[in-house]
Amino acid sequence: MFDLIPSGNITSASGFLAGAVHAGIKSKDELDLAILCSEVTCKAAGVFTTNQIKSAPVILSQRHISKGRAQAIAVNSGCANACTGEQGLIDALAMANLTAAKLGISPEKVLVASTGVIGVPLPMDKIRAAIPKIKPTKKGGHDFCRAIMTTDTRPKEIAVRVDSKGGKFTIAGVAKGAGMIHPSMATMLCCITTDAVVSADFLRAALHTAVDGSFNMISIDGDTSPSDCVLLLANGLASNELVDFDNGDAFQQALNAVCTHLAKSMARDGEGATKLIEVTVERAEDEVWARQAARTIASSPLVKAAIHGNDPNWGRIVAALGRSGARVREDRLDVYLNEVCVMKQGSLSPFNKADMISALGNRDNVLIKLCLNLGDGKATAWGCDLSEEYVTINSAYTT
Amino acid sequence: MFDLIPSGNITSASGFLAGAVHAGIKSKDELDLAILCSEVTCKAAGVFTTNQIKSAPVILSQRHISKGRAQAIAVNSGCANACTGEQGLIDALAMANLTAAKLGISPEKVLVASTGVIGVPLPMDKIRAAIPKIKPTKKGGHDFCRAIMTTDTRPKEIAVRVDSKGGKFTIAGVAKGAGMIHPSMATMLCCITTDAVVSADFLRAALHTAVDGSFNMISIDGDTSPSDCVLLLANGLASNELVDFDNGDAFQQALNAVCTHLAKSMARDGEGATKLIEVTVERAEDEVWARQAARTIASSPLVKAAIHGNDPNWGRIVAALGRSGARVREDRLDVYLNEVCVMKQGSLSPFNKADMISALGNRDNVLIKLCLNLGDGKATAWGCDLSEEYVTINSAYTT
Repeated sequence: MFDLIPSGNITSASGFLAGAVHAGIKSKDELDLAILCSEVTCKAAGVFTTNQIKSAPVILSQRHISKGRAQAIAVNSGCANACTGEQGLIDALAMANLTAAKLGISPEKVLVASTGVIGVPLPMDKIRAAIPKIKPTKKGGHDFCRAIMTTDTRPKEIAVRVDSKGGKFTIAGVAKGAGMIHPSMATMLCCITTDAVVSADFLRAALHTAVDGSFNMISIDGDTSPSDCVLLLANGLASNELVDFDNGDAFQQALNAVCTHLAKSMARDGEGATKLIEVTVERAEDEVWARQAARTIASSPLVKAAIHGNDPNWGRIVAALGRSGARVREDRLDVYLNEVCVMKQGSLSPFNKADMISALGNRDNVLIKLCLNLGDGKATAWGCDLSEEYVTINSAYTT
Repeated sequence: MFDLIPSGNITSASGFLAGAVHAGIKSKDELDLAILCSEVTCKAAGVFTTNQIKSAPVILSQRHISKGRAQAIAVNSGCANACTGEQGLIDALAMANLTAAKLGISPEKVLVASTGVIGVPLPMDKIRAAIPKIKPTKKGGHDFCRAIMTTDTRPKEIAVRVDSKGGKFTIAGVAKGAGMIHPSMATMLCCITTDAVVSADFLRAALHTAVDGSFNMISIDGDTSPSDCVLLLANGLASNELVDFDNGDAFQQALNAVCTHLAKSMARDGEGATKLIEVTVERAEDEVWARQAARTIASSPLVKAAIHGNDPNWGRIVAALGRSGARVREDRLDVYLNEVCVMKQGSLSPFNKADMISALGNRDNVLIKLCLNLGDGKATAWGCDLSEEYVTINSAYTT
């Protein structure tokens, strides 16, 4: 149904351009201000942080996207413009206005996002000087990806080409994760572009579905940033038949794949992480509880620390399941670690501990599977191990 | 209303005896099996883990305490007897029977508790050999306290003498916390004794009230053990007037103080912890949300890591508040760190960062206070900082 585009990035979809500069918001000489734009107005959908403390860019972008239209996204790294009060909103609006003037479009069509330190005002003089210097081009996708990184160790981008019954189109995504060498840098941010012709209602629904199964299923440390957002622009420049609820499967699957890829990349690149942890819960009472159970296990500090030490400590997995809220019957529970059964119907299933430890040590991804044998609910969550490095990154900055 | 008893311990209340031996459940030559008993049958109340995976001792003790009577508690450390299926229940019952035979009482009056590794059967031969050797005495309180420790670095015990209008009585408590050098050791366990004459219904209600404000307000790492329990025995040997709902204030306050002291001791002695964090949320919409907000902040890995590094990173405190579910209005929010205002009505309140860092470094307790200015809800939660040592303790065991 869809193919990965080699070296694909956020500008792989038709009619999308991007560019970035070093504005000086970050002290290092790195790209820190970027614009993504479409040649034409897009249908737009967004999913925003559920944190009640919302950054100014989140508040402004929610307002601008409410009509379902947008044409550009301006992003800076190095400063989150969160907990900055009225001045923060004024600055976010100014950033949108400057971008609009630069592109010759109306400010309401510009979404903004900021990632970085909380509680520090945006350096507007630097942003005012830098925005005119940004030159969005077809080749700017990788630069955009680098400009939104804070301390991510790897860029996170993907593009897929969908060949559906209704025609061909592209979906591309870029994200930054939770690298936090500077304390307070804790934002997930994702932009997705598509040239598909797609109905606005379906676009919104499809984005929520994709986010629920991907970004909402990862956890680095359980903390949610005031700046989190996922923005999707669809410019309709592909010549496919209108994608809507009745024929949206191919679009939905490809969008799910893009979001899942980016979400897993984030989990794998969590601060201090050395391993990706994938937790699948099967046959839970229903999907809601399967999700809750999988997320609870993937974010348990004790499970994460055990995985870091290659310790097949399945008791912690079972204990995390037990407190997740999902209904559990111990006498029906099966637990698998890297596909080896360690508990069958609530009884210990003997396994070779030395082999297991060595298998855990040889892999940078760990699979945990639980079968609750109670119903049809299934879900997968992703997390990362908890290392000393995580603590060092998040505590040692000022000392 | 009450006074601390110097060197007070679990046998400070009249008519309670305790003793402990090294049964060999722990490999080190340490006390690991203990009995606490009363000279007469007690009214008993218990609060047990909400984890759906319950250890066998929890299941048995819940059954035995259901009639509100008990006379003895047998506890071992080194093995949790959790995730051990039917055999676990048989072993827990055998431990109660052996204790009953030793003391010459009926098995239904014996409560049992086990703390240690999950998924390993109790070594019943060792327990069978050791129980007859235990000699409960008036002086055995400190030994009992040491025998229930796993890797706690400090004993946790207290006794208070209450002088109420209705007469004098004593309340004493002992607890173990979350020291987890051995992976899977993650249990909180608390025994409380009193010689007060007290009604059974009030006793149960008072225990729930005290636990809600103390043990339920601490978090080491968000993980809940299948073995957690708090057991309270009241033998009525003091000559006070019956304590009941209409005159229970002095009893409740003293019980709250005993539980809060033990809970704070646990938080302070969390694995790898160097600091106690006390989070008070005031003027929340109601108490339920105040509790939720305080607990969310006290257990945020990012807040905990910042405190470890003496970093006055209040943005993380506000972000954790924002995701707690409690209603927040940013423009009404006041935040204090060690009594210094860092945010007033949502605006940054300038403070001397160098002084704050040095103050954080010089104290082993950190006070975080938030005033939401929305209602009358108030709550306090306790936690500890997150150190590299926590990760090392919980990951490096098998490597």
